[in-house]
Order: sequence, then structure tokens, then C-alpha cells
Amino acid sequence: MKLQTPKGTRDFLPEQAAKRNYIFDTAKAIFRLYGYLPIETPAMENVETLMGKYGEEGDRLIFKVLPRGEKLTNAIQNQHIEKSVEEALKYDLTVPFARFVVQHQNELHFPFKRYQIQPVWRADRPQKGRYREFYQCDVDVVGSDSLLNEVELIDIINDVFQKLGVEVLIKLNNRKILSGIAETIGAHDKIIDLTVALDKLDKIGKEGVIKELKEKGFDDESITKLQPVIDFSGNNEQKLEKIASIIGHTAIGQKGLDEIQTILAYSKAKNIVIDITLARGLNYYTGAIFEVQTKDFPSSICGGGRYDDLTGIFGLPNVSGVGVSFGADRIYDVMQEANIFPDTLNQSLEVLFLNFGENESKNCLELATSLRQIGISCEVYPDTAKIKKQLKYADTKKVRWVALLGETELANHTIVLKNMLDGTQQEIPMTQLIPFFNKK
Amino acid sequence: MKLQTPKGTRDFLPEQAAKRNYIFDTAKAIFRLYGYLPIETPAMENVETLMGKYGEEGDRLIFKVLPRGEKLTNAIQNQHIEKSVEEALKYDLTVPFARFVVQHQNELHFPFKRYQIQPVWRADRPQKGRYREFYQCDVDVVGSDSLLNEVELIDIINDVFQKLGVEVLIKLNNRKILSGIAETIGAHDKIIDLTVALDKLDKIGKEGVIKELKEKGFDDESITKLQPVIDFSGNNEQKLEKIASIIGHTAIGQKGLDEIQTILAYSKAKNIVIDITLARGLNYYTGAIFEVQTKDFPSSICGGGRYDDLTGIFGLPNVSGVGVSFGADRIYDVMQEANIFPDTLNQSLEVLFLNFGENESKNCLELATSLRQIGISCEVYPDTAKIKKQLKYADTKKVRWVALLGETELANHTIVLKNMLDGTQQEIPMTQLIPFFNKK
Repeated sequence: MKLQTPKGTRDFLPEQAAKRNYIFDTAKAIFRLYGYLPIETPAMENVETLMGKYGEEGDRLIFKVLPRGEKLTNAIQNQHIEKSVEEALKYDLTVPFARFVVQHQNELHFPFKRYQIQPVWRADRPQKGRYREFYQCDVDVVGSDSLLNEVELIDIINDVFQKLGVEVLIKLNNRKILSGIAETIGAHDKIIDLTVALDKLDKIGKEGVIKELKEKGFDDESITKLQPVIDFSGNNEQKLEKIASIIGHTAIGQKGLDEIQTILAYSKAKNIVIDITLARGLNYYTGAIFEVQTKDFPSSICGGGRYDDLTGIFGLPNVSGVGVSFGADRIYDVMQEANIFPDTLNQSLEVLFLNFGENESKNCLELATSLRQIGISCEVYPDTAKIKKQLKYADTKKVRWVALLGETELANHTIVLKNMLDGTQQEIPMTQLIPFFNKK
Repeated sequence: MKLQTPKGTRDFLPEQAAKRNYIFDTAKAIFRLYGYLPIETPAMENVETLMGKYGEEGDRLIFKVLPRGEKLTNAIQNQHIEKSVEEALKYDLTVPFARFVVQHQNELHFPFKRYQIQPVWRADRPQKGRYREFYQCDVDVVGSDSLLNEVELIDIINDVFQKLGVEVLIKLNNRKILSGIAETIGAHDKIIDLTVALDKLDKIGKEGVIKELKEKGFDDESITKLQPVIDFSGNNEQKLEKIASIIGHTAIGQKGLDEIQTILAYSKAKNIVIDITLARGLNYYTGAIFEVQTKDFPSSICGGGRYDDLTGIFGLPNVSGVGVSFGADRIYDVMQEANIFPDTLNQSLEVLFLNFGENESKNCLELATSLRQIGISCEVYPDTAKIKKQLKYADTKKVRWVALLGETELANHTIVLKNMLDGTQQEIPMTQLIPFFNKK
């Protein structure tokens, strides 16, 4: 038997789990400060809830669940296995959230602000940094089209990364600007080709983009008009002026410009960079588009935007929403590489009482109970193993203090505390143990 | 399209999610005080890791994942769908944990103390309180056969339920006592039938148990010998004496008695009740067996025991472990019914700034930032909606304070705070807002 997890999935050992929890707990604490509430949806959705929502490629990557019992027997006989599938594993948190909002619309209070931290599954070809099971950490507001929500989400992004110690840049775009550009160059029907090409500017450069546009049937005139967009540089103000000069005459383009200007005016963030090549699943976003990057890391670690009709697919039109998704795995990698996880995450235990025998350990159990009552984590080593072995355990568990209560100490009502950081030790009266740790 | 979650699965709305998180967070904090470390395993396991571990009935209830791509096409053509399945959803946390321990044995430090809080899936017929997706919350020590671990787990059980405000009774048994009974009545080969019948004493009474034993082929002599076991009553000491008089002559029975006596001697718990009818998946436990009950609730809310050969199925023999599993759903139901969740869980927001317009809300955004910096959760209502609507939102969100900053207040550099508990309001200088909440 292969002793391993399925392809593309992982176990998390204590150190990794603690670090991941640190990222999630930090994010959650911030979300709560802004009034966001937790929700959860099941791992499985009815298959029809998911199919057709992620494009053809997405549909293929959805994990489906094998029918059971008679249903399976019939399906095999009639060779319609795929049609008999009832459940599938969720592919992202967004579509299940849309289903959730529509299903529970009468139980929710709008604007509804929620966060959701759960795993999702994609039958993608696994590669470095890409897994078949990974966590998404989403925060969304639905039922309000105020741009204050966008401003708030930018604040949240900055608070989370500041707390984590990760320096970030927030790229900002607006779908309406992309529409304005398409309209300006007379390629209204080719907006997807246009933005897919623009989105690659970082990777394939100006020449590459122009080549791709030509291949997609853009004529020379359009491409000439596009030139200033591709040659885009300067600070935000200069960029806004330049965009205005190109697309300001289109109603939709001007709307996009206004929205960006409002967000910049309200936000206290200094790290917003306008990037009109930013698209991120354009079909979905209708207004602001965000993407968060950190230097020295190629892919984005957080992203999102405004969507005006997400719940429409489930029969509830005209509910506007905006949200961002934090990429836990990538944030983990960035923090790991920069070595900025707090050291305390490694220190899983404050005090280990060594085990010198029945009588001694009975006393240690009592002392351990008292320590826990003041919030100090501690263990009594369960076996009367060799002291060397017990000390090795203390080392591997990165214990802060080792407490020794042998026959002599028991007789003298004392206890020896060994500081595992500097190796020093001191003997104190047993009654001073709690005061000693209370002072720390 | 059916707007619902798959059969037997549930969404958790904010209030439910907050209450569930409260249970998990409480348990986690206690686990950490005892030096337990978090781990996670994937939702899916390789199907051969799970199959054959839960009996025939269990195997049938495992959710399998449909093969994809060419594998599916071939499987359909050759009608060997089930054999082509590669992944399945985990059925419990125990078997994946055993796989984890064996796979990572060289990365772990023994005794290894871990907790794990994750969902599991069973294609059971859904009914009240039984779901197809539910969370397990497990805490185990592997690699130590010291009874101090059992004592520690009892302490943990008591600490968790005390913190949650749930009064519990801990039933304690030992597989060796059950073996001793089987040996005494000469039914060594029928230990499973015997314990399955005894396990039902609560439900079907003495007559029922005797009837079932007869049906299973126990002769009158055996049943007569069993009588004192069935008529079992008294306090722990009396029970131990009685058991000793019946099975004390068997080596295995005496060993079980010794173990129970040691646990009782070391434990400070006053709520342990010996119950020799307790079996709980006997095939699996080899020593202590625990089950936690609360009055007025029929099913157990926590249970576990000692298993001496769990990792043996994955090729690592002689690793003893002991652990308990907290039943989150049932604990939730008990707490909900007793109405003992803290009120503060409902209060998701401290301060709501009403939105009176562009200028005012810009100021509110700044005040909100300052409040969050001192840990006060707050929101600026995103839209300039009617005040009545904004106040209704404050009500539904159970906001503690509503802050009003209109044109007049803005001119006077003041802000009005409305106490939503008693309806009183006060106007304070804007500069006093932070000191006001700092004092709270």
C-alpha cells in the first residue's frame, strides 16, 4: 500500500499547521474588527450548482463524487455515470457563497459582510505551489454598491499584511476602463481577447502583446490607438490623466475613472498602483479589480473585485458585491522565504515536568494543573524514561522550562527549574512555582 | 435548479458558525495548555487507505471520488468503475491519523500529542442529529503506554466541558475487563456478541440483553454466571470489588482492574463512573474505554479509548495510542438546548457609524480606523441610506453602540453615541471617542 496522500494534496505537520493557523487567525481577527461575520458551506455542492460556472476548463477540473448503491448499479448498466453524479467538491468559495446568499436571502441582513476560510478542490495538474486541495480565505460584502466597500477592503488588505509583516503593493484597475479602451479602439466585441493580451504585458512585453493582438485580428489602426495604453507609466495621477485623454470621451470609461478617483480619494493607503492591464477573470468582475503583490514573488498573493451579478445565476438579480480572496498557500511561502513567522509559533510548550517515578509524577500532575489554571501550557512526561530521552523530547518540542522534581526535591518541598534557552537552573520552593510563572 | 446543499449537509450561518467556532476555540485552547499540537490531513485519502478499515457497513458509507478523463472513459468501457476509483473522502480522523503517523514517523517526536479538528464524510441515511458531513475534534497521544495519558485525557475532557459550562459524567471501562468476563463465562470466542449485547443494557434492559445472548447461542450456565455483571450497581469501589470477585482470577481481567484502579488513583476527577457495559467499537480499543454523557441528552458527546495497534494496519506495529473525540454537533445541540452559549457571541460589532453623506463618512472612516487600532470592532455604514434602515441594520447586527456624526456634529467637532442596550445617547467631543472606548 502506498503510504501517501492523494496526488496534489498534503498533510500539515504541527509546525506547518501552527504557521497556517497564524495566517488564518491574523486575517480573522482583522475581518472581525471590520464587522465581517464567519460562514461555512459544505465541501460538497449539488453538481448542478457548480457545473457551467467556471468555463469548460473549470468544469473539467471539478472533482465529482461517485454515485452509490442502486444508483451506481443502474448508471453502470446504462453507461450514464457522469449524468448520475449528484455531488461535487467545491471549486472555489464564490459560487457556493452566491448559492448561499440566494438560498438564505431572508435570513441574512444586507449589506451582508462575511468571511469564509475553507478548502477547495481542483483536479489540476499539481506543480510547485499548485495543489489539488488548498484553502481559500475570502472576505466579501454583498448588497451594497457603495465604493466605501472597496475602500474598506483595501484597508483590510493593508491591515492583514501589515500584521503579518509582509510589504505589499495593491494593483487597482476597473473593468469599466477596460470597456472604455475596447470601445475607443472599436473592439467592443473583442474585450476578452484584448484584456487577455494586456494581462500578459508583464510576462511577454510590449512586442508580445502586439503580436498576440494581431493574431487575434486587431487591425493596425486599433493597435496604434492602443499604443499609449501599452506604454503606460508614471504615478497614479499621471496615469489617470493619460487614461482620461484616451478613453474619457466614452461614458463607461469615464465612469471607471471616476470610481478609481473616488477610491483613491477616500483611501488612506499609500501603496495603491493603477494598473490597467490587470484583468483577473474579467467575465466576472464589473467594477474595481484588485491584485496584491509583494516584491520578489512572481504571483499575486491576494486579489478580487466588484461583481454586479453573481447571484443572478441563481435567480436573484441586481445584488452587487465586492470581495477579495487571500491566497493562504502563497502567503505562507512568502513568509517562510522571508523568515518572518514569529518565533513563538515554534514554542509549543512552556513547561515540561520530567518523570522520576510514580510518587514524583503524582505531585507534578498537581503542579501542572495549577500552572494551566494561570494559562501556562505544560506537560508531565508520561513515562519514567531515561532522563536523557526526556530531555531530548523537551528539546524537540522547544520547551521553554524543564521542571525537575526528584526524590530530594520532593522531600525538601522544592522544584528545580531549568531554563532551556540559557541552560541555567534554579531551585525554588514548590510554593513559589505559581508566583514564579505569574511574574513572567 | 434546486437551491440547496446536498442531502445530509449544511450551511452554517454567522450565528451558528460563531457558536461552533466557540466550541472549537475553547477545546483548542485547552488542548494547547496540555501540550497538544495541531495537524491536518487532506479531505481525500487514497481509497485503499480507507477501505477495509471500518467493516463492511463502513466501507459502503465511504464517499468515493469519480475518476476523471481517460481513466473514466476506460472504466466506463470496461465496466470497472469502482476499481478505477483512486480517492475517497475521509470517514473519520483516526485512520488518516494512523496513516499520517506511519508516513511521517521520522519527522515526529514521540510521545506525539496531536489535536485535529476537521470534517469527515459518511453516506449515511441523514436523520435528526446525523449528517453526511460533520466535524470531528480528536485529541490523541501515540507512542506511550503510560496510564498518565488516560488521566490527562480525563482532565482535558473535564476542562473543556467545564469551560463550556456543560456538566458531564465520564463513563470508564476497559477492554481487558470485557475479555475477563468473556473468559470467565467460557465465551472467549464470542466477546463481540457479548459486548454488543451488554452495550444495549441501557436501551433494552436486563431482559432484552438476556434474550439477545440466548439468540446468539450463549447457554444458560454462561448467562447465570453473567447475572452479577448485568445487575451491576453501587459506587466505583463497590463495583470494582464485585468485578474482582467475578473475573479477578483471570490474568487479563485483573490487568483491566489494575488499570482502572490506577486511573482512579491518579485522577482528580470526581465524575468518573465505571460502566462495564461500555464497548464503543470494541475491535479497536485494547485498554481504557471512555464515554462522556450529560444528563437529559441520550447520546454520548465525547468518547474514546486506548488502542494498541492502530498503526499496525499501515505496517508500524507496537505503537500504543490513546485518544478521545469530541462530538461537536452534539455538544452544540446540548449547549443550544440549555441556552448556555455566551451572549457576547451574538454581538458581532461594537460600533456602527451611521452614514450621513460624503463629508461625514470620510470623517467616520478615520475615526473607525482609530477605534480598530485599540481593538474595537466597527463599521461605517457604506450607503447614505435612510437612517431608519441604517438603525435597523444596527439592530439586526446587535451592535452595541451607534455613532452619529451629522453636519452639526461635524461643525462642532463632536459625535453622538447611542447606547443600543438602553437607548440613551450622549454627545462627546470627537477627541474623546478613543478615551471613551479605551475606558470600557
